Amino acid sequence: MKLASLMHGRDGRLVVVSQDLTRATDAFPVVPTLQAALDDWDRLAPRLADLAVSLEHGSVPSFRFHEHDCAAPLPRAYQWLDGSAYANHVELTRKARGVALPENLLTEPLMYQGGSDTPLGARQAVHAIAEDQGIDFEAEVAVVTGDVPMGVSPQAALGHIRLVMLANDVSLRNLAGPELAKGFGFVQAKPSSAYSPVAVTPDELGDAWRGGKLHLPVLAQINGRLFGRPDAGTDMTFDFGALMAHAARTRRLGAGTIIGSGTVSNRGADGGPGRALAEGGAGYACIVEQRMVETILTGAASTPFLRFGDTIRIEVKTSTGHSIFGAIEQEILPHVG
Amino acid sequence: MKLASLMHGRDGRLVVVSQDLTRATDAFPVVPTLQAALDDWDRLAPRLADLAVSLEHGSVPSFRFHEHDCAAPLPRAYQWLDGSAYANHVELTRKARGVALPENLLTEPLMYQGGSDTPLGARQAVHAIAEDQGIDFEAEVAVVTGDVPMGVSPQAALGHIRLVMLANDVSLRNLAGPELAKGFGFVQAKPSSAYSPVAVTPDELGDAWRGGKLHLPVLAQINGRLFGRPDAGTDMTFDFGALMAHAARTRRLGAGTIIGSGTVSNRGADGGPGRALAEGGAGYACIVEQRMVETILTGAASTPFLRFGDTIRIEVKTSTGHSIFGAIEQEILPHVG
Repeated sequence: MKLASLMHGRDGRLVVVSQDLTRATDAFPVVPTLQAALDDWDRLAPRLADLAVSLEHGSVPSFRFHEHDCAAPLPRAYQWLDGSAYANHVELTRKARGVALPENLLTEPLMYQGGSDTPLGARQAVHAIAEDQGIDFEAEVAVVTGDVPMGVSPQAALGHIRLVMLANDVSLRNLAGPELAKGFGFVQAKPSSAYSPVAVTPDELGDAWRGGKLHLPVLAQINGRLFGRPDAGTDMTFDFGALMAHAARTRRLGAGTIIGSGTVSNRGADGGPGRALAEGGAGYACIVEQRMVETILTGAASTPFLRFGDTIRIEVKTSTGHSIFGAIEQEILPHVG
Repeated sequence: MKLASLMHGRDGRLVVVSQDLTRATDAFPVVPTLQAALDDWDRLAPRLADLAVSLEHGSVPSFRFHEHDCAAPLPRAYQWLDGSAYANHVELTRKARGVALPENLLTEPLMYQGGSDTPLGARQAVHAIAEDQGIDFEAEVAVVTGDVPMGVSPQAALGHIRLVMLANDVSLRNLAGPELAKGFGFVQAKPSSAYSPVAVTPDELGDAWRGGKLHLPVLAQINGRLFGRPDAGTDMTFDFGALMAHAARTRRLGAGTIIGSGTVSNRGADGGPGRALAEGGAGYACIVEQRMVETILTGAASTPFLRFGDTIRIEVKTSTGHSIFGAIEQEILPHVG
């Protein structure tokens, strides 16, 4: 089943979307919003799934689905906890900031609590104050959970995953260093994240969803040019079950919690930090990684951060080339106060 | 106007509460939940205020108000950003963890993004895994905002404050050191916060609300014994306008955002870290401060963190002794998985 929230008021209008992302039908006869569906999932999900089947059969009224009409699947969410499950990303970003790696990098997930009150829809622009804040994207996989009990095990946590989607964890790199140095995590350096037009149930992913990971490449483009295609199932140190168990160690998680994977990031064949696409590597799903590798190789970063007018695009396709979640495609624009 | 959410489903049942906290009337004829009221505040607040007047006059049906029936005013919220506006608290807690002070402690607010999906009602127990996690409370003032535009000034931010309330920012001190050392802020060391039974509009506070600060002592008790009564209007380095402007520097804040003051903390008359009540000081609104001062004075902390069966109580009274927000009163209990 594929679900989306069309832009409508603060909480969107829930629609069931066809597998090929061409048509949609209103979920309103079942439930008006995704949050309301998550609040009563066991009762409502089967009815939404029935609607999805009817949509494929053409036996319910439907309309053309346009990704640009979408708010985030949860147009506002009660929680966004973003992991850093790909150690290669942590190693490169820490090196870029000139700070030490967490001692338990490979044994305990790194995670921050981010803002979830004003997420961006997949085609909504990123508005930033100034280019010199170091505007970057981070292509991630994210899951939406049901109610998760405190103390859940990684294995049991997987059963609480309701939906899978993509995220752009917008990052202001030049604010991150000074902000993290204060010791309390991100507030200003991580403005609103954006999410894919569509969120899908894990069964929709077939074999590509196993072991709490999405085993497909994440395609990241800048200005229409492929920048990276790291595989989300490769080099993911902690699966989503482990991330959720970490988040729920001292408190329960409410239905509609979004857990992010962190920037998808693959090592090179030599175990090193990977190579840019132009050098035959898988490339990167954020700019700071490529800049750090450039610095390691040549002594200086040559790839700029995003500039006003740039567009980033994040997408995942099936092995047969079909877009699964629709595409995040966002222009970077100056904030006008 | 005083508002509360009685426990009912996930989002509570909004009631208007009398000034003396003895009676309440259903807000349902106006709006069913506090979040819905905040979403359309300009239109709905005057009607809720009318209801409050009618309640005082006895001209609407009302019922006995019991604080223990209350969920948090926002039984789940889209955002909880907790400042550390009292530098004395930051200085003592950093010293306790043996880490450096932020360089810009007095010029830029320190703030972390916390969990808001599963807040506790004022009388709901704090469930912790083990006493050796260093269970502590933090008595704070908090505001609930309307929609706040990105880049708002501190002065303009004050106009977006809708409600004022109290918070207990539950803290697991022995998890905080290792977690903060990882560099991404709190996830496990700050489980669900609790909020006062009642949230009040700023006008309800009269002269005690000025300059974006609450000018009244916060009374903190442990097991029925006063532990501290620091004044919330004293030694607050950043007022709520400054905290909100900091939070909104790179993103807008959605209606229903909760901004916390951080632990209310007063310096001593000598400019030092204050004194315990037993030593003639104002005492403390969390345990770790008293422990740190004990360590400074005697070389070792003698006050224990909270133990299972302990009860903490947080309240603010008018100059004539009337409870404004009702009391947070929580027992500490073991988590049963």
